[in-house]
Amino acid sequence: MPSSTIAEAVTLPGPLAVAMGDPAGIGPETIAKAWQERQALGLPPFFAVGTPEAFEQVWAGPVQVVSDPDAAAAAWHEALPVIRIDGGGEVRPGQPTLEGARNSLDSLELAVGLARSGVASALVTGPVSKAQLYAVGFTHPGQTEFVAERCGIAGEMVAMMLAGPTLRTVPVTTHIALKDVPAALSTELIVVKGRTVIRALRRLFGIERPRLAVAGLNPHAGEEGALGREEIEMVAPAIERLREEEAEVTGPHPPDTMFHGRARARYDAALCLYHDQALVPLKTLHFDEGVNITLGLPLVRTSPDHGTAFDIAGRDLANPSAMIAALRMAADCARRVAGG
Amino acid sequence: MPSSTIAEAVTLPGPLAVAMGDPAGIGPETIAKAWQERQALGLPPFFAVGTPEAFEQVWAGPVQVVSDPDAAAAAWHEALPVIRIDGGGEVRPGQPTLEGARNSLDSLELAVGLARSGVASALVTGPVSKAQLYAVGFTHPGQTEFVAERCGIAGEMVAMMLAGPTLRTVPVTTHIALKDVPAALSTELIVVKGRTVIRALRRLFGIERPRLAVAGLNPHAGEEGALGREEIEMVAPAIERLREEEAEVTGPHPPDTMFHGRARARYDAALCLYHDQALVPLKTLHFDEGVNITLGLPLVRTSPDHGTAFDIAGRDLANPSAMIAALRMAADCARRVAGG
Repeated sequence: MPSSTIAEAVTLPGPLAVAMGDPAGIGPETIAKAWQERQALGLPPFFAVGTPEAFEQVWAGPVQVVSDPDAAAAAWHEALPVIRIDGGGEVRPGQPTLEGARNSLDSLELAVGLARSGVASALVTGPVSKAQLYAVGFTHPGQTEFVAERCGIAGEMVAMMLAGPTLRTVPVTTHIALKDVPAALSTELIVVKGRTVIRALRRLFGIERPRLAVAGLNPHAGEEGALGREEIEMVAPAIERLREEEAEVTGPHPPDTMFHGRARARYDAALCLYHDQALVPLKTLHFDEGVNITLGLPLVRTSPDHGTAFDIAGRDLANPSAMIAALRMAADCARRVAGG
Repeated sequence: MPSSTIAEAVTLPGPLAVAMGDPAGIGPETIAKAWQERQALGLPPFFAVGTPEAFEQVWAGPVQVVSDPDAAAAAWHEALPVIRIDGGGEVRPGQPTLEGARNSLDSLELAVGLARSGVASALVTGPVSKAQLYAVGFTHPGQTEFVAERCGIAGEMVAMMLAGPTLRTVPVTTHIALKDVPAALSTELIVVKGRTVIRALRRLFGIERPRLAVAGLNPHAGEEGALGREEIEMVAPAIERLREEEAEVTGPHPPDTMFHGRARARYDAALCLYHDQALVPLKTLHFDEGVNITLGLPLVRTSPDHGTAFDIAGRDLANPSAMIAALRMAADCARRVAGG
């Protein structure tokens, strides 16, 4: 039976928990707009975790403050259910504040806890501002690493997948300066991330024998060593080791020729060596519908693959497509895990 | 009058010179297939420079060895005109040899000379193997730098543009290992390349007030310095100086959000900081029709943006679309230059 059929036959054990992201960004608006379309699009039940004002400021629809996921599931048909966090400060769309950043962290923490305990089926996170989070003392590179730590998983063991309708990419290194990338890479790290991806393709996406394409680091994948030796010394040995998994692992591929249509048809996910190697092709192809999904966690976590967009917040201009795609993918993956 | 109308009204002063590339690659086959379609597609007259055997091995159509561009123009309607180089060695498609690499260099050198002297209107170059060229002692990073030197232009002053139907990109650094990119970049280099691009958009593409989008180096363009400081210290100052040109210069842009459809509509060319930052989006979108055009030369030079594809050479599988696009763009640009 194809995996999608399995997935649809399984009922979600509970609603999805959605952390609002930065209250001054477009997170609340996209969450509210997704709720509004819940029937037309057949979306799974979800509730937001955050400051109710963040939703009321940007949306005229019904918001109901609820105390727990069960109450949220009951309220779902009538109003956007919101589990309130005790955050202070005024919300002004488009005008981020340190209090707002702290509230986005509290929202994330509570939503993680609810998904971790199983009362929520999965976690979806709205966009945060890294600069704002760093300003309030956040010490993780991003939300992904924070969620991993809260789940007791070493950051290195999890991987950030970006998924769109025709491409899935996973960067081995993520939010670090480009100049630090070569030294941050190692055969071991590529193997660890590659294994996480292969296993997640099986567990979350129902692909029995995953096909993984591994990118090179240098132009033309180093052109036999003439333009860099990382492919020979680091990437090729990692690919050898990954071939011990039950998977089809290819590469190192020249980065510029692995993302066109015919190339994409040959693999289920591309393992990339740095942030923009993974993100440029994904967002070039699927800007409005990209989903970020964290692999290697005990819980399912997705998020829309866009930023806070403070410049358009509160002006009813935010496109909810990526949030909707993130909700759908979270539900699909949670069903596969539950149907296991 | 729009520039395209100007361009079409001007007659080319002579045929285009096409260097064959590596004789064992798909260059000869794509050149021959383009000639075959000359009438259906209304292609400008051109001649190949190379070893006639390289064409005869992979193509059953008529080849006529000619002595000079005038004779080539006369032969054009009846056969693919080839100006022969004195190269030894057998040609076996898909099996590159050192002699073949030397022949590809001789072909390039002669074709450059013909375009330089003006008897050919422009230069189009077939794909070569850098590894093979390095093996015969080629000391330039690529064909572009070689052509620049033969024209007496410092390599730093020219720029490699990759152009497809909806995107033009120019990498500031090209064929170097990724780890060497940050140290190779400077404000001065970005300014020099940016000026070359702005002037070429005007001269070769007829865009009076060019719009140039400059990419950042780091994820999220450094996120205000948190993920790297090159944007603040190097790229932003370069943009300031480029604004002194008659052009609209924007950036530093986060690399991952500057290549989707709506973003591409906002600029005429993207100035990228390294090879794959420019090549990944271009080839992801326009794999079969990408053209490489060298900016800043006294002559017009284009080439199809693909490699030798030794694996499919001689099997009648090569797609001539990029060669055809390169011939067309060379003719369009040569007409604009001739039309002043």
